[in-house]
Amino acid sequence: MSTPPSHAAKDAATVGVLGNGQLGRMLALAGLPLGLRFRFFDPAPDAPACAAGACVLAPFDDLAAADRFARGLTVCTYEFENVPAALARHIERAVPVRPGPLALDVSQDRLAEKSLFRTLNIPTPAFLPIDSLDDLRAGIASVGLPGVLKTRRGGYDGKGQQVLRKPEDLQPAFASLTAGLAQDAGGARSAGLILEAFVPFTRELSVIAVRSTKGQVAFYPLTLNTHQSGILHTSFAPLSPLSPEMESTAHGYARAIMEHLDYVGVMALELFDHNGRLLANETAPRVHNSGHWTIDGCVTSQFENHLRAIMGWPLGSTEALGACAMINIVGQSPPTEALASLAGARLHLYDKAPRPGRKLGHINFVERSEADLHARVNAALDLLARSRSGGA
Amino acid sequence: MSTPPSHAAKDAATVGVLGNGQLGRMLALAGLPLGLRFRFFDPAPDAPACAAGACVLAPFDDLAAADRFARGLTVCTYEFENVPAALARHIERAVPVRPGPLALDVSQDRLAEKSLFRTLNIPTPAFLPIDSLDDLRAGIASVGLPGVLKTRRGGYDGKGQQVLRKPEDLQPAFASLTAGLAQDAGGARSAGLILEAFVPFTRELSVIAVRSTKGQVAFYPLTLNTHQSGILHTSFAPLSPLSPEMESTAHGYARAIMEHLDYVGVMALELFDHNGRLLANETAPRVHNSGHWTIDGCVTSQFENHLRAIMGWPLGSTEALGACAMINIVGQSPPTEALASLAGARLHLYDKAPRPGRKLGHINFVERSEADLHARVNAALDLLARSRSGGA
Repeated sequence: MSTPPSHAAKDAATVGVLGNGQLGRMLALAGLPLGLRFRFFDPAPDAPACAAGACVLAPFDDLAAADRFARGLTVCTYEFENVPAALARHIERAVPVRPGPLALDVSQDRLAEKSLFRTLNIPTPAFLPIDSLDDLRAGIASVGLPGVLKTRRGGYDGKGQQVLRKPEDLQPAFASLTAGLAQDAGGARSAGLILEAFVPFTRELSVIAVRSTKGQVAFYPLTLNTHQSGILHTSFAPLSPLSPEMESTAHGYARAIMEHLDYVGVMALELFDHNGRLLANETAPRVHNSGHWTIDGCVTSQFENHLRAIMGWPLGSTEALGACAMINIVGQSPPTEALASLAGARLHLYDKAPRPGRKLGHINFVERSEADLHARVNAALDLLARSRSGGA
Repeated sequence: MSTPPSHAAKDAATVGVLGNGQLGRMLALAGLPLGLRFRFFDPAPDAPACAAGACVLAPFDDLAAADRFARGLTVCTYEFENVPAALARHIERAVPVRPGPLALDVSQDRLAEKSLFRTLNIPTPAFLPIDSLDDLRAGIASVGLPGVLKTRRGGYDGKGQQVLRKPEDLQPAFASLTAGLAQDAGGARSAGLILEAFVPFTRELSVIAVRSTKGQVAFYPLTLNTHQSGILHTSFAPLSPLSPEMESTAHGYARAIMEHLDYVGVMALELFDHNGRLLANETAPRVHNSGHWTIDGCVTSQFENHLRAIMGWPLGSTEALGACAMINIVGQSPPTEALASLAGARLHLYDKAPRPGRKLGHINFVERSEADLHARVNAALDLLARSRSGGA
């Protein structure tokens, strides 16, 4: 039997992704059914995305590898915001990078990001740049205690920040966060700290928004998020008791940021709901964990709409198909067989080895009523709790 | 920056698939979110499944390559029924093959399949084995005209069969189909022809059924199928005007076949609806084109349930989430941008080069009402028709 000719399409587009973690994996799982091909650039071997596309394994400062990665791509995007902006700018000389590197500049620096909110008249907690312990003392005198001291760059999942509750907390928090900055050899240049007023928020919300190359915008319903140890634990959407005014306010904020940055792709905006007033916390220039419910909860998921946007295609529907929830599987996971026994569960596992604090997968539910949803979510939370305590 | 350690799970299961076409691709797209890995065995390079798993490219009679393919697999399955049963039996010495090779034996030979229907008291059109022109003349004298002459092995998508409408059709049909058999050097041994009574059926239905290693069974709603040039064109499910009796009859037939074969995995059973009486036409021991609507139309698709079944995991829900339709994209496709403009369309493209009669992808719709469904299906059919006539 002779080797048959290739059956593959000759003109398929290839999407390049900086980063090869689970967000890249889910981009590919959404994009392969659109006929797209995927190539990832990241130093991590055997990473989640490598099951669904070619992986170029190299450090982010290896520009020769970046050139190999970029060759023949239709468009390049990224799946995490701590990709060096210099790498994105290098690749942009050969291939469109969407969202543009300007979005990276803003989201990589909490001070730039908060300043943008202020420029756009988007309410945000009071903030001050902190470059010395004297700055910090003066800052606390201005915003009061408690306050939150954060690194301007590199923080995620609750890392790189400390809550200051009493005057004695200032010096150790400053020392610990600046020591962390000095150790952070892999990141971009250290750019100091930022002090933010502590917001005793009622709840944390997020909005996933998307804007195409043609300026078309769409917004998913506002999502309610809960956290455990600083890591996203659950998301619920849509929020039925929510006032339509609050939702349109949140969408307006996301629209203003995207239009200001001439943004292309999916952007997440995290918000504090402070007694009914929304305060912008931060943005992520990428698909976002609080949008994972859209994989099963919408006709067009955040992953598919990100790809439609960066390809210049029409955006798809962002309407919720029911009462939706997402539960993260963090640290360790019950056996797949046990997860598969959960009625109505849609599993999304990332093929990662268990480790404390590591996101290993998530479970989505889409139900006809909130009562059904909560019963099924509770069954899943019970299973995960039993697994953590060694009982499953 | 040194190379970080692998983050991959150490105990992930790998599923082997014989064949690397679009069915294998969709198995992997359903199975990666379950944490499974995929490896495919097929001579075809650059085939649809290779984007979502490792491809071992070798002829099906290369048993050394089959051994490399089988090494370390958790379970092996297949995505088309014309895999040589000898290959499946060879692999079975090292790794469980599900469905078992017995299912291949039956579905590869229309005579064995029809005889099994008869054994199980499942109504089927009258049939006779045909090994000579004299057999054929005697057969037509028995079943009458019109009749359908088919090769016992190797037919699909309307190939390998001819309708006999008048006595003069017998000799050329016999000559043409036996000539085809003689040319079929790559297939199994030639096993003659089968004559079947022509059924002027009202409509063609199919049922997708699944049975797990533990004997758990589940059935998707009966599906209505239409064809163009012998190739599946559309599927609709569930069939609201259908009598529950007809559905339970069809499910009972599928159950009897699966239990008789100690079957594990998804099986499709095609049926003629002849004035309200169901006649079994054929089975497919695999995921099936008429079950593609389940990707979006059910909590657990046929692809996911096939994997759950062969992994020995609990089966998921087969309930339809709405009024569902599937439209095949055959021969040529409109640009993806045009397809993406269809409201509510869920695209499933296979990354294959256009060619007359080749399945390039499909479009699913899941709607709240049949009226909504038909409006959207018609918009899609219009777009596909414009594309074929060069207008899109």
